[in-house]
Amino acid sequence: MNDVTQPRRPRSLRLRRLGIDTYQEAVIYMHRDCYVCRSEGFDAQARIQVEHSHRSIIATLNVITTDLLALDEVGLSEAAWRLLGAQEGDQVVLSHPAPVESLSHVRAKVYGKRLDAAAMGVIIQDIVAGRYSDVHLSAFITACSKDRLDRQEMVALTQAMIEGGERLDWGRTPVMDKHSVGGLPGNRTTLLVVPIVAAYGLTIPKTSSRAITSPAGTADTMETVAPVDLDIADIRRVVEREGGCIAWGGALRLSPADDILIRVERSLDLDSEGQLIASVLSKKAAAGSTHVVLDMPVGPTAKVRTPEAAETLSDHLVEVGRAVGLEVRVILTDGSQPVGRRIGPALEARDVLSVLRGEEDAPRDLRERALLLAGHVLELSSRVPPGKGQILAQEILDDGRAWRKFQAICEAQGGMREPLRAPYTHVVTASRAGRIVRMDNRRLARVAKLAGAPNAPAAGLELHTRVGTIVEKGQPLFTVHAEAPGELAYALAYVETNPNILQMEEPT
Amino acid sequence: MNDVTQPRRPRSLRLRRLGIDTYQEAVIYMHRDCYVCRSEGFDAQARIQVEHSHRSIIATLNVITTDLLALDEVGLSEAAWRLLGAQEGDQVVLSHPAPVESLSHVRAKVYGKRLDAAAMGVIIQDIVAGRYSDVHLSAFITACSKDRLDRQEMVALTQAMIEGGERLDWGRTPVMDKHSVGGLPGNRTTLLVVPIVAAYGLTIPKTSSRAITSPAGTADTMETVAPVDLDIADIRRVVEREGGCIAWGGALRLSPADDILIRVERSLDLDSEGQLIASVLSKKAAAGSTHVVLDMPVGPTAKVRTPEAAETLSDHLVEVGRAVGLEVRVILTDGSQPVGRRIGPALEARDVLSVLRGEEDAPRDLRERALLLAGHVLELSSRVPPGKGQILAQEILDDGRAWRKFQAICEAQGGMREPLRAPYTHVVTASRAGRIVRMDNRRLARVAKLAGAPNAPAAGLELHTRVGTIVEKGQPLFTVHAEAPGELAYALAYVETNPNILQMEEPT
Repeated sequence: MNDVTQPRRPRSLRLRRLGIDTYQEAVIYMHRDCYVCRSEGFDAQARIQVEHSHRSIIATLNVITTDLLALDEVGLSEAAWRLLGAQEGDQVVLSHPAPVESLSHVRAKVYGKRLDAAAMGVIIQDIVAGRYSDVHLSAFITACSKDRLDRQEMVALTQAMIEGGERLDWGRTPVMDKHSVGGLPGNRTTLLVVPIVAAYGLTIPKTSSRAITSPAGTADTMETVAPVDLDIADIRRVVEREGGCIAWGGALRLSPADDILIRVERSLDLDSEGQLIASVLSKKAAAGSTHVVLDMPVGPTAKVRTPEAAETLSDHLVEVGRAVGLEVRVILTDGSQPVGRRIGPALEARDVLSVLRGEEDAPRDLRERALLLAGHVLELSSRVPPGKGQILAQEILDDGRAWRKFQAICEAQGGMREPLRAPYTHVVTASRAGRIVRMDNRRLARVAKLAGAPNAPAAGLELHTRVGTIVEKGQPLFTVHAEAPGELAYALAYVETNPNILQMEEPT
Repeated sequence: MNDVTQPRRPRSLRLRRLGIDTYQEAVIYMHRDCYVCRSEGFDAQARIQVEHSHRSIIATLNVITTDLLALDEVGLSEAAWRLLGAQEGDQVVLSHPAPVESLSHVRAKVYGKRLDAAAMGVIIQDIVAGRYSDVHLSAFITACSKDRLDRQEMVALTQAMIEGGERLDWGRTPVMDKHSVGGLPGNRTTLLVVPIVAAYGLTIPKTSSRAITSPAGTADTMETVAPVDLDIADIRRVVEREGGCIAWGGALRLSPADDILIRVERSLDLDSEGQLIASVLSKKAAAGSTHVVLDMPVGPTAKVRTPEAAETLSDHLVEVGRAVGLEVRVILTDGSQPVGRRIGPALEARDVLSVLRGEEDAPRDLRERALLLAGHVLELSSRVPPGKGQILAQEILDDGRAWRKFQAICEAQGGMREPLRAPYTHVVTASRAGRIVRMDNRRLARVAKLAGAPNAPAAGLELHTRVGTIVEKGQPLFTVHAEAPGELAYALAYVETNPNILQMEEPT
């Protein structure tokens, strides 16, 4: 064809920060009358390739019809700024993206084909690079749900997720780890297991998550007593000195695909054996662990509901773990009720500290659970004979070594502090006499969140009764803690309209 | 529990129009420090129930971290404004939505269970009400993809989609309709079939779509000669007077679930027999049709690729059609190349007008295709004996009745006009001699879109050669049409960098 000598218009536009947080989704905002938008035929919801110096991402277009943006400006969602590493005022070049080739593998899986390691690899690479929209992520998760991944596919997915991010190497073995599958409220055993195991002289570099839908994650709770936002160099320094750490893993890019997939899985609430296994094991392997004890609570409202389901899942975890270089031991525990007495970051930390300090009224269930798990970690290391781990763990806790190690770890992470106490509290009392027959964990968690947890770390609630207790009219049931009077009022309004949070029967 | 007498804070906030077009997704924008956001524990991506007088929607939260919004203001995406029917400055009340119960049916389908009519009904109701996020829609589509819906499920889905919107009733039978499954570029037979069939005295109230990813939809093309944005009363008036219409169906709420699902399906590019069938048939039944001729192009790059696939699909269409009260006839046609000579709304209209006016150079393929389909529509009505339809259609076209009926329909729809001609054109010529061996339809469509189609109705391109033609160096290949010099330049820049849009071989 002939040469065309028409002037070419640049497709470069100036970046403007609108400050729109879409969580993880890369969104680009462009004015409807912007010439790039018009001439490229971009419509709302189009996927657009955004290039900025050496990086390039794919973002979903939202079209601005007001003067929020000038015609030569584009905005980005906060997630897109992060992915692109751009600054306000920088120029970006926009184009139609090449088709995302790995989607053909997703379609193949939807149609019932098996995926090999290479296919899983490119899918996870594209997910980590932000090339999948929510629609694509959901199709992948749906196609892999329930038992649709066989053992080899689970291994391939786990391996791909490990390789999709950073990987720590501690240059030694064993490197111990523990994890709870589908956490129970208040189940803060990590803050006890790590100091016990590290005090014994083993290496246990623990990375934890923040709360996503719960009132407190392990990282949120730890943060009320010490800094947790450590980079990889910090973690190395702490672990070299103390043998263990309890850090927030979110910024370390360990299995970043997991963080992306888990949000979509939550939104679908689909059971997926393969995804669960890949999620847990990829994080552990990426953190450089070699030996992992998994706490698997089993109960009618827990993630794992029957002993049979627990057995199948344990088998897969052990075998897939072996294939990616992890020695895995699964411990089935009671998943029928919450652990400890307090809900919320600082409140849960107080439960933990009371166990570490050996206080009279320390919650016994939390202590026993932690000793059971710590015992298994000790035994799994092969440094402690089978059957001796739990007694050893108890000695380390009771003679104060665990408490000293916990303080040392906190100091190494940046300094220990006492968890804050909330300035506003309100005691909710029984409106009549009766026996507590059931606690609605979901609603208790909701009260703690309305009171401000986990963003307000001192917020949450403290139970004064347990299931089975007989209470008098006017007797305290629980105390709501808040950092602001508005949040307290808001949580109490919810309590008022939900009288069955603690379900009572007439005493017989 | 005791009475709580703390003051309760309202969760009501003031609506502010930001003018953000997310296409169909309901998004709510809220400041990070807004007390509702904080006390409810809403994070980016949370699903939020938004109540306004008597309506309530579920929207996805995007959190604003700048002063785009005040603390007591919330923004909505354009789609959310429409769903809610709200005005700037109105108050809305926000809360956590109740769980979307129908998602349990989606999960059941993902796990391989069959869905009955009741389950399909509530799923479609929730989709139409905007209660499904993209993640949920994608899971539903994935679970129903390929051949995962059996005949009964297809009927249930089609029926649910019909009942999910408005339904026209013409109080007579037959009411004729035609539709192309997976359109070919330039396949504007509707603008010929409708006047032929209406001129014969049959009722054919045709509703069409606008382009979504192509340079022109039937409604876009018709709009260059007459208004198409008719409401139901307009359509009734036109059809009562002229027997037929060619209107845009987008605002009539006929099977609105289809419009929502089709966007997500496109994004996944998944084959789904059941969805395709429900999509086509629900639109026709909702429009009040009783007899439908379906044009099914078959070819290596068409939606339906083999005669076997065409046969299975035809069977389903006929049987599911019967179950929802439609008499369906499927016509397999050649899907190997585009139809007519021009691409773009006004340009395609000129092809149609030249056929209607019986002009010498009218594209023969377009004419023949339209006569074939019109013949089948006439026969399916039972007013014309089998085998006589096509000849009758030809008579009606050749003696000018179809042309007069077309003009009358245009007048009834608001007045006929000649399609605009673009002020800017550029002839692309052959850079060397050779034989045209292949045309890249996808890239030709892209050139037309870059030149401004369909938003600029006169934009597009006109082919001067066909596959098999031998051209000299400098001979015109095609002309690009544009309404603005910038768009012309932009399309030509693309032509320059894509020399193989028309693929040539040395003449032998």
